[in-house]
Amino acid sequence: MTVPAKTNPTPKHMLSLVDYSSDEIFSLIEASIKHKHDAKVKGKAYADGLPLQGKVVAIMFSKRSTRTRVATETAVTYLGGHPMFIGAQDIHLGVNEPLRDTSQIISSMVECIMARVNEHEEIKELAHYSSVPVVNALSEDYHPTQILADIQTIHEVFGKEGQSVAESVKGINVAWVGDSNNVLYEMLAAFPKCGINLTIATPSDYPVPSKFLEPALADAKASGATISVGTDPVKAINGADIVVTDTWVSMGHETEKDDRLAQFKGYQITSELIKEGNPSPNWRFMHCLPRKQEEVTDEVFYSDRSIVFQEAENRKWTIIATLEHLLVDVPSKN
Amino acid sequence: MTVPAKTNPTPKHMLSLVDYSSDEIFSLIEASIKHKHDAKVKGKAYADGLPLQGKVVAIMFSKRSTRTRVATETAVTYLGGHPMFIGAQDIHLGVNEPLRDTSQIISSMVECIMARVNEHEEIKELAHYSSVPVVNALSEDYHPTQILADIQTIHEVFGKEGQSVAESVKGINVAWVGDSNNVLYEMLAAFPKCGINLTIATPSDYPVPSKFLEPALADAKASGATISVGTDPVKAINGADIVVTDTWVSMGHETEKDDRLAQFKGYQITSELIKEGNPSPNWRFMHCLPRKQEEVTDEVFYSDRSIVFQEAENRKWTIIATLEHLLVDVPSKN
Amino acid sequence: MTVPAKTNPTPKHMLSLVDYSSDEIFSLIEASIKHKHDAKVKGKAYADGLPLQGKVVAIMFSKRSTRTRVATETAVTYLGGHPMFIGAQDIHLGVNEPLRDTSQIISSMVECIMARVNEHEEIKELAHYSSVPVVNALSEDYHPTQILADIQTIHEVFGKEGQSVAESVKGINVAWVGDSNNVLYEMLAAFPKCGINLTIATPSDYPVPSKFLEPALADAKASGATISVGTDPVKAINGADIVVTDTWVSMGHETEKDDRLAQFKGYQITSELIKEGNPSPNWRFMHCLPRKQEEVTDEVFYSDRSIVFQEAENRKWTIIATLEHLLVDVPSKN
Repeated sequence: MTVPAKTNPTPKHMLSLVDYSSDEIFSLIEASIKHKHDAKVKGKAYADGLPLQGKVVAIMFSKRSTRTRVATETAVTYLGGHPMFIGAQDIHLGVNEPLRDTSQIISSMVECIMARVNEHEEIKELAHYSSVPVVNALSEDYHPTQILADIQTIHEVFGKEGQSVAESVKGINVAWVGDSNNVLYEMLAAFPKCGINLTIATPSDYPVPSKFLEPALADAKASGATISVGTDPVKAINGADIVVTDTWVSMGHETEKDDRLAQFKGYQITSELIKEGNPSPNWRFMHCLPRKQEEVTDEVFYSDRSIVFQEAENRKWTIIATLEHLLVDVPSKN
Repeated sequence: MTVPAKTNPTPKHMLSLVDYSSDEIFSLIEASIKHKHDAKVKGKAYADGLPLQGKVVAIMFSKRSTRTRVATETAVTYLGGHPMFIGAQDIHLGVNEPLRDTSQIISSMVECIMARVNEHEEIKELAHYSSVPVVNALSEDYHPTQILADIQTIHEVFGKEGQSVAESVKGINVAWVGDSNNVLYEMLAAFPKCGINLTIATPSDYPVPSKFLEPALADAKASGATISVGTDPVKAINGADIVVTDTWVSMGHETEKDDRLAQFKGYQITSELIKEGNPSPNWRFMHCLPRKQEEVTDEVFYSDRSIVFQEAENRKWTIIATLEHLLVDVPSKN
Repeated sequence: MTVPAKTNPTPKHMLSLVDYSSDEIFSLIEASIKHKHDAKVKGKAYADGLPLQGKVVAIMFSKRSTRTRVATETAVTYLGGHPMFIGAQDIHLGVNEPLRDTSQIISSMVECIMARVNEHEEIKELAHYSSVPVVNALSEDYHPTQILADIQTIHEVFGKEGQSVAESVKGINVAWVGDSNNVLYEMLAAFPKCGINLTIATPSDYPVPSKFLEPALADAKASGATISVGTDPVKAINGADIVVTDTWVSMGHETEKDDRLAQFKGYQITSELIKEGNPSPNWRFMHCLPRKQEEVTDEVFYSDRSIVFQEAENRKWTIIATLEHLLVDVPSKN
């Protein structure tokens, strides 16, 4: 009896929103909003049964990432599947065996791989050899599932009754004040094509690499969005609807902590900085969490301006929409 | 579209049986017995379908606790949900971010949080900020799910045909011989109000703090139960229906092990101590496990008098009843 | 109300294929092939619903084992159950409490225990005290679930249309070139009784212990299969249909790595060794993975001759068949 090794030879992945059009992004977020509404307002379970019942999504994390893990485990469960969490203590991705082997083997037994890696090349390698969709749960370059949640949150806060996601986020001004990192690079991948304006302030030693900036500028030109890059937090905040930052000392950077704290002097989001920067009257604060005091004061973080917990919860609903897009809306491989 | 952040703003928790009446305790145990009987004798699955299908219970443990973990994972599964175990290697509760943030974030994505913490204040903090029920899986002060299982086991062993839990456990004499710890404090929270008598022997350097003893004495006065506190194992055992102990050197106390072993001299439960103490003719031995030789000999631990494995299995059924009470018998949040 | 502690007092286990007849082995593999075909070709879920719904299989691993873990988690999920993975960081099997206690306690709450241990005595101890089936996920002596997958893979590659597993594998020549280890001992337990011939080359310092060899020779005599034992890779490969090896430096042997590399000189599977050995024209390469360069070159490992990924995927389907045999085809205990 002949059984094919692969029945889905060219799976679709989500390594970065670089590979997704604005229409696809908006469509994912509209689906996410629908699921959130069905579950929380109507009290309904997933509309179409439990499409992942009997199936497994492998969650392979080289580093800890509680929010992404919890969002993914709850999303997979919502769809009826089993989230199989394999942490850094259980698997050394790329160490005990080549990523190529790991990808071929694991993908032959599961429905999807969600991986948190170090170098972005690792997630590309996993995707290249996988027979099932691979989702980037965070790499050194990109963080697509975070930015989907961010766009949904912007829509929820700034959208008017009846507006689509596309309509509501167009022209929103986002000010990034902080590190030059994967969360920012993912914003550059998604915001300009969605019509969201981005003003960036990073310390002069942490510029935005042109490999992330150039394509973003091209997207902005096409959509009519604006991007400005600088080193002055006050200027970046001026007129902003959203002020967003992230930790300055990510996992792996602990040894350079003192250096970094010095270089990020003046970047802490405080009431004084906000006042000086003069954002839009309706400004809000975002942060992908976990948050440390050094980058934002309690006064701002726990204020009514802060939408960080709504942003965190939206991780779950956008990942449900992503898995539905990759796994349910296509013929199953098993 | 407006979606409320919380639809269940005041969830009920289980941080200690201090907060539960004797009627509530008996009702939980009656439900537990029914589930055990349905499953093991009738071979039925959960009577009313799989109420937690598509939903997640977060199991967050700052320390290992195999029995509580296995009992909880099997209980959640029995109800159709996904138990998401997050161990000490995956999350540093209260270290990487404030418990307040962790609680708000995780509770926004799951149906329930079961947490093993260090200081009892931590579980109170988690509960305070959580939008879903929080169950204490063990803190330095309390261990409610253990004592529910203990009461069920006492009923199963000492109850007569047709007796309710309330009837069968009233007047049972329990002798605690060992450390002054969370398991004892939880017994003090539950036994007196349930009409169970408690005689306690702890070494003189390990007295029962009055914050646990005083309310227990008040409960005993109200129910007619008795509590006696001392340092003599022989006296404590006299007339006991149940002799119970626990490890003397819990996780975190390993450095003081030699000191402790000296101070607990004479506290090992042996056949000789039992003979000298003269318990009731029908006496039984209990232990919440894991067990070490130093606190009880093999002769007693593996004897027919020992009901420790029945006690351990009852962890599962009582946690099923607890989750049903907190999650199924109330309108769902997610 | 009296509830029995055990309703399945004599569960069937799978500690090694030593305890299984060739008919039982073939029957398991035929079931595995059917499941693989149903799922991958027909796109069907498990034929008879989700027999393990609401139930838990404990996966307790003293050492890492990604393939066995993933295969087991996906198999349990396929049958509707919850795979509860408890890694070495979560439980110290036999350290914190006797295996006897762990086995009695865990087995009272779950449907099955799958354990990776060190000494084979440990898995025997677990099985002795367990009230549910115990499956050996790898011990120092045996690896039954690996060899079931190997036999299925041999059938898939060498079987002719319409042949049963028994017919297709009879007379196949397997050459083992490598260490004297648990994978080889499990082959010795299963291959001779299934009519598969085995030629073995291990370095002279790593002979096959007679406790594994003697019963295999008796099985071979009964079935008409052949076994030859030596130290020369070239001779072993001669006429082989399958050339198989395994890592030389397993977990726990890292300290003796340099010694071992010296002793295994000449054992690396290379194109040159294959050419010199002159296997059958249709030869294939197998390896239970993870694989290191030292025991096989990329040229062989990633060639069309290599069936290692098919072999790995078959871990899932054979474990589904094993769990079905142990848990579904017998009355449930809950």
